[in-house]
Amino acid sequence: MPTTVVPETKVDVLVIGAGPAGLMCANALAKAGVNVRIVDQRPSKVAAGQADGIQPRTIEVFQSYGLADRLLKEGNEMHVAAFYNPGPNGGIELTDRVPDVTAPTARYPFEVTLHQGAIENIFLDSMKEMGVQVSRPMVPTQLDLDPAKLGDPNAYAARVVLKHLEPLEDGPSTEVVHAKFVVGTDGAHSWVRKRFDIAMEGSQTDYVWGVVDMIPQTDFPDIRHKTAIHSENGSCMIIPREGDMIRLYIQLEGKDAVDAVSGRVDMKRMGPHQLLEVASKSMRPYIFKTPNEFDWWTIYIIGQRVASQFSVDERVFIAGDACHTHSPKAGQGMNASMNDSHNLGESTIRLSRIISSSLVLYAAWKLVYVLRGWAGISLLKTYELERRKYAQDLIDFDVKFSGLFSGKPRTEINQNGVSHEDFPSGVPNVRRVHERDRDPLRRVGDREVLVRAADGRPIELQDMLPSNALFKLLVFTGDTATAGKSLDGVAKDVTALVQKFGTKVEVVTIVSATTLDKVSWRLQFWLMGWAEYLGFKGCCPTRRICGGHRAGNAYEAYGIDPRAGATVCVRPDGYVGMVTPLEELDTIAGYFESFLA
Amino acid sequence: MPTTVVPETKVDVLVIGAGPAGLMCANALAKAGVNVRIVDQRPSKVAAGQADGIQPRTIEVFQSYGLADRLLKEGNEMHVAAFYNPGPNGGIELTDRVPDVTAPTARYPFEVTLHQGAIENIFLDSMKEMGVQVSRPMVPTQLDLDPAKLGDPNAYAARVVLKHLEPLEDGPSTEVVHAKFVVGTDGAHSWVRKRFDIAMEGSQTDYVWGVVDMIPQTDFPDIRHKTAIHSENGSCMIIPREGDMIRLYIQLEGKDAVDAVSGRVDMKRMGPHQLLEVASKSMRPYIFKTPNEFDWWTIYIIGQRVASQFSVDERVFIAGDACHTHSPKAGQGMNASMNDSHNLGESTIRLSRIISSSLVLYAAWKLVYVLRGWAGISLLKTYELERRKYAQDLIDFDVKFSGLFSGKPRTEINQNGVSHEDFPSGVPNVRRVHERDRDPLRRVGDREVLVRAADGRPIELQDMLPSNALFKLLVFTGDTATAGKSLDGVAKDVTALVQKFGTKVEVVTIVSATTLDKVSWRLQFWLMGWAEYLGFKGCCPTRRICGGHRAGNAYEAYGIDPRAGATVCVRPDGYVGMVTPLEELDTIAGYFESFLA
Repeated sequence: MPTTVVPETKVDVLVIGAGPAGLMCANALAKAGVNVRIVDQRPSKVAAGQADGIQPRTIEVFQSYGLADRLLKEGNEMHVAAFYNPGPNGGIELTDRVPDVTAPTARYPFEVTLHQGAIENIFLDSMKEMGVQVSRPMVPTQLDLDPAKLGDPNAYAARVVLKHLEPLEDGPSTEVVHAKFVVGTDGAHSWVRKRFDIAMEGSQTDYVWGVVDMIPQTDFPDIRHKTAIHSENGSCMIIPREGDMIRLYIQLEGKDAVDAVSGRVDMKRMGPHQLLEVASKSMRPYIFKTPNEFDWWTIYIIGQRVASQFSVDERVFIAGDACHTHSPKAGQGMNASMNDSHNLGESTIRLSRIISSSLVLYAAWKLVYVLRGWAGISLLKTYELERRKYAQDLIDFDVKFSGLFSGKPRTEINQNGVSHEDFPSGVPNVRRVHERDRDPLRRVGDREVLVRAADGRPIELQDMLPSNALFKLLVFTGDTATAGKSLDGVAKDVTALVQKFGTKVEVVTIVSATTLDKVSWRLQFWLMGWAEYLGFKGCCPTRRICGGHRAGNAYEAYGIDPRAGATVCVRPDGYVGMVTPLEELDTIAGYFESFLA
Repeated sequence: MPTTVVPETKVDVLVIGAGPAGLMCANALAKAGVNVRIVDQRPSKVAAGQADGIQPRTIEVFQSYGLADRLLKEGNEMHVAAFYNPGPNGGIELTDRVPDVTAPTARYPFEVTLHQGAIENIFLDSMKEMGVQVSRPMVPTQLDLDPAKLGDPNAYAARVVLKHLEPLEDGPSTEVVHAKFVVGTDGAHSWVRKRFDIAMEGSQTDYVWGVVDMIPQTDFPDIRHKTAIHSENGSCMIIPREGDMIRLYIQLEGKDAVDAVSGRVDMKRMGPHQLLEVASKSMRPYIFKTPNEFDWWTIYIIGQRVASQFSVDERVFIAGDACHTHSPKAGQGMNASMNDSHNLGESTIRLSRIISSSLVLYAAWKLVYVLRGWAGISLLKTYELERRKYAQDLIDFDVKFSGLFSGKPRTEINQNGVSHEDFPSGVPNVRRVHERDRDPLRRVGDREVLVRAADGRPIELQDMLPSNALFKLLVFTGDTATAGKSLDGVAKDVTALVQKFGTKVEVVTIVSATTLDKVSWRLQFWLMGWAEYLGFKGCCPTRRICGGHRAGNAYEAYGIDPRAGATVCVRPDGYVGMVTPLEELDTIAGYFESFLA
């Protein structure tokens, strides 16, 4: 036997699994300059089907990475939800049409549907620009943590053996990666999760669904709306997709598709033609022909499970389907595409496989801070704390919602059935969950256009909060003519804060004034060239560092009194970390000191 | 001497000159599937400086080719115009700040500034995707029209000899191109123009200007606004550019930069340091330091000239600077960037070198129609007709405006000087010039968001009018509940029109209704799947062919009575060709018949 040297490499973070969750995580880390490696067992990205819906708040996350333009260009926008119920003549009839998303102040007040492969491509291309590519097909076969190294965040505490599934022509079939941290985003059957004997808690339901992606031939008028159909012949749901494609979810009788002995779906029992036969019955009197081609199809049982723990020794983290899953199979689009239709606020986004991956960012910035030596390793303990609660909320909602949808419709005859009014619709106007629930926070992040002082250009506040791993300090100075605290005093306090935490904080100043003319000279310079005003080495008042003054009613929208002002500290993941009165900047200093090294 | 075979090739259209005008023309032709060749004498595209401003209406043109996203991403938005005049203490002081563009209903209510090379790149990349690249460095040395072939639009009537300026290693240094049509966009010193002895009529002014592109070091508060400065020490103008760059226009004393004998600018007499010395005096009391680096600079004399003819035998056309120029040198940015500040309506865009190139589209679609056999060659006669009038308007404005700006400021002492109020600012709400001036047209093209019936998605009307060389028939059905004419009747008429001119016309239906529910079933199908409704071979009601129903007050904005409706016929270049009452679709048929083959 020839001796082959098994290569050993070192990496800050090893991400196992390159679905949307893993890719979003690796992209975020790469963007922050972290030495990241990502591996996947599949030989190539997903080609069709799988997860679909992207919620308004998640589109914002894409935007913060400069990736929303492409998402919007390639995806389909879903604006209207329609409901059909049994009519008097045996067929279905329209009951209601409502906005799919009732968040008119959101920057993107709609859902985007796009197949998983296209979403993966967005991240893959972004990572490629940063020199990061997925190693595939590859699987981990061993993962060990060295207890002696756990205390030092810069130690390579994890040793992972990776195996090439397609052995290289001239090289060993395995390699060893020494990683400081490991993220397991390897799906519902997560190897990483099983390696640490982390249990999935929860149950499987009796609800069995078929899913078919196709270009329909129909005269159904709501074919380009998100449509829930309850009929005497069963239920189905239409999700319009990119191009002329739609996704159809079809409720099945368990006996038709499930093996009675194993309790598992037997995909040999039904194919897309049988699924569409069921669907076309639900859709009567409308014509719904079976097309010649299908883009993708599956059958799955709705299950609701959440992992008993989300991290191991602050060195290994699991995320995405690996820690909360609603199905033994891949087809979670049902929830993905329905998750705006309820009112759990932020936890909406956790219904979706793709969306839940955005919560990976929760972990990502904390890893960045620990790796940079900006925070102690204990910051990573908060991942599980924040993460598990949301996952559980998600499952709780899923249990309730699945029951609603799979229930029989309420009709003249069946008064105990489910009426469409029971379907929750629309999310409230609540912005991301924040650690401290103060009023002004609730809507920071909604669509508020400010006018930039330097050049009069309307700027979305969100575009001043890019995902660059830095905290953002929004200084709402108030109406500088009437504000209680002198601007010089505020400037002095902010200067002190910036000098202490400067590399980790960006300042955005927002004045309550309708035109630049109403702003004092000193403040104009402050707005146009913060550094200049503070006496730092400056050049011209550039657009690099700038603030915005108020356009419209941003103060009112955020609930900030222009006579008082406020400071809002936004975390690197876009969540609000703290809000204080303008006079109490030392509170923010204390907040930083509580976890920054 | 070795015998080298001079290659001879055939092409539908040969474009000579690959500046913005030529590139826009070649891109438009390539997009329409025309076999086009483009050559340029420069070895590579422009790297810096040159033309800059893009007007709101021209951004719309970029959008219609799918190129606006990149333009907006790379360019700088200019929103505010500021005016400085002599103050009481000898220095300048702020007189006024106004919106740079007073077109709040425009889709892009601002100017974009971006250096010419970046703009050229947008077209070059677009053309590359279609397999068209610029042959360079190459110049024409002969151009002859065969009188015997002029009658047949499909004959290769033009024989052009092209010479490689960098001779090929293994090949002849010249080639012969046989073209059906030739477009000369080869600049102010146009070889094509001279070849046909076309005179430039007009005169040179006494106004001499210096231009410098740089990153400034200053405490001037309006450095990111378009700022006109009149001081006792001269005039200058600031144009903010992409990144932190600005362009500075500096008024010079003729004697400092012009050779008295030749009357031409002598660029050895002044460099950028001298230019900035002049500027810094005008800008007192503000500090304006001379930077270490300059991106580009020039000196030019304002001239106003227009070609005596724009085409030769409907086979050769000249466009861009080749037929109207305002300067013997390249630096036309002054006008380019000021051209929204007056009220000639559409002719605003002709002040700019870049913008004027958009009028190349005037010619482009007509060439396409003739080449496709859709129209007779006489359609091309209208190019000169439409074109020259605008060029003359442009010159007339330029004469007036240059005088205004180069004049001494009006002060306490000099009451005959120019006040900033004399500077025209803001364009009226008038959309592109149209051949028949009927009221509803005036604002078609303004920002009006419609809601698409099929999926409830807000759609810009402009995005339903892409530059695809087809006429668009906008059928404003009115309020279908109260409209006088039955919808079936309208549908029948439109069907007849579409059947007759189908390949050349796209139909967009716009209903005066606030929700889909208000729209009749038959109309819903019409909106969602025109072809389906008309009994053509249909599939599902797709998004491919669809209409929008009214969102907000589109009817009101366009001045269309919802009780009556109207049809609007938009030309392939975006100009409105005709408007008729809903009942008089035969008038549109007559319009088409007047020039379509």
